Amino acid sequence: MNLLLLEDGDFIAADRVLLSGRRLKHLIDVHRAEVGDSLRVGRLNGLMGSGQLLRLDAEHAELSVQLDQPPPSKLPLTLLLALPRPKMLRRVLQTVSSMGVPRVIFLNSYRVEKSFWQTPFLEPAAIREQLILGLEQARDTVLPEVIIEKRFKPFVEDHLPSIATGTLGLTGHPGDYTLCPRAVEQPVTLAIGPEGGWIPYEVEKLQHAGLQPVQLGERILRVETAVTALLSRLF
Amino acid sequence: MNLLLLEDGDFIAADRVLLSGRRLKHLIDVHRAEVGDSLRVGRLNGLMGSGQLLRLDAEHAELSVQLDQPPPSKLPLTLLLALPRPKMLRRVLQTVSSMGVPRVIFLNSYRVEKSFWQTPFLEPAAIREQLILGLEQARDTVLPEVIIEKRFKPFVEDHLPSIATGTLGLTGHPGDYTLCPRAVEQPVTLAIGPEGGWIPYEVEKLQHAGLQPVQLGERILRVETAVTALLSRLF
Repeated sequence: MNLLLLEDGDFIAADRVLLSGRRLKHLIDVHRAEVGDSLRVGRLNGLMGSGQLLRLDAEHAELSVQLDQPPPSKLPLTLLLALPRPKMLRRVLQTVSSMGVPRVIFLNSYRVEKSFWQTPFLEPAAIREQLILGLEQARDTVLPEVIIEKRFKPFVEDHLPSIATGTLGLTGHPGDYTLCPRAVEQPVTLAIGPEGGWIPYEVEKLQHAGLQPVQLGERILRVETAVTALLSRLF
Repeated sequence: MNLLLLEDGDFIAADRVLLSGRRLKHLIDVHRAEVGDSLRVGRLNGLMGSGQLLRLDAEHAELSVQLDQPPPSKLPLTLLLALPRPKMLRRVLQTVSSMGVPRVIFLNSYRVEKSFWQTPFLEPAAIREQLILGLEQARDTVLPEVIIEKRFKPFVEDHLPSIATGTLGLTGHPGDYTLCPRAVEQPVTLAIGPEGGWIPYEVEKLQHAGLQPVQLGERILRVETAVTALLSRLF
């Protein structure tokens, strides 16, 4: 946790917060914080700054905070991801949140196992928890938007073309395609497939919606690694 | 497992292998393989090709194999990593193996907890297991070399300068440094710090050995994400 993220409910005055639970435990166990310490803080979906620890006991931490810095900017990106398996889903959510992706759309694909859609990790509170861990890691305050699209065809036919309009539309897919471009200047719509990749029909439908297939080389990367590698190359 | 990796002990003839254990279980449970199926195979530290499943039962799988393709090339890189915490270590080993890093040196740092050096995940067999998972993921056959250096100062003073000679030497470090270069043409020696980063003394010693600090932006990434992001940008 490189940033102590504060929620509206933590504020007991305009410049004063009271914390308990996970963040209190982290302050005590990991930061080994003491009264008087100064910590990096940020208000969820708001500004960042510093907090001074006024009081600390087993039940609560009280801090006075000064919030005057904007959070880091987000990437100009809409990321489409075939729904990963539950364990990977949690890590991917942290990764995209820490890397500054503002909008993620989880999509069905032929190679997404039906059972993946049943995971409790897709519930809003579970998604939010992982996104917040990513923000705390990267020192950001703004929650990415996460959208769930369980039906591939209607989404790709009816909604994706307007999302992709005016952006560089790309599908990350191993194969005999051009290499993923580097350091692009325009906004991007990027689709990344499941373990095993998109099927040819899906690559074609994505292409029809404005997303051209690009590759990263011979090596097949795990979804989480592919996300990081593609974003790092593009931006 | 995108490649069935064969070891010398699996061969019962020049073009015939007998498998049991983890790989047999994977063939049955995940690939749902059947006699006659053709699978991508590779010989550890050797060529890749295809294998045909001749026999499959609860005890063994027997394949005839044809090995005629070279594995993908490695990155021209020596990667120095401050030893990560044990759980992260395992994932990092898979990541570097899948991304084609040929040589990794795990190094001490002020912010590496002493207990991390006690983990059983540092034993040669445990390291090898994770590297092999990375090779199977990426479709590579060549094990990276992993070197353990428990003492920072003697390594950085006495050995690092000769490793870095003739390469682009870089230390990934958040701060007011130049941005990490993109798409470099020469071999690289890259050092990545622990969670919390190198201390200033370490950055200075690395710089003295020929590694200039470079940054990736305001966001603080987990070690595993930083490794992928830096490699994807550099190569």
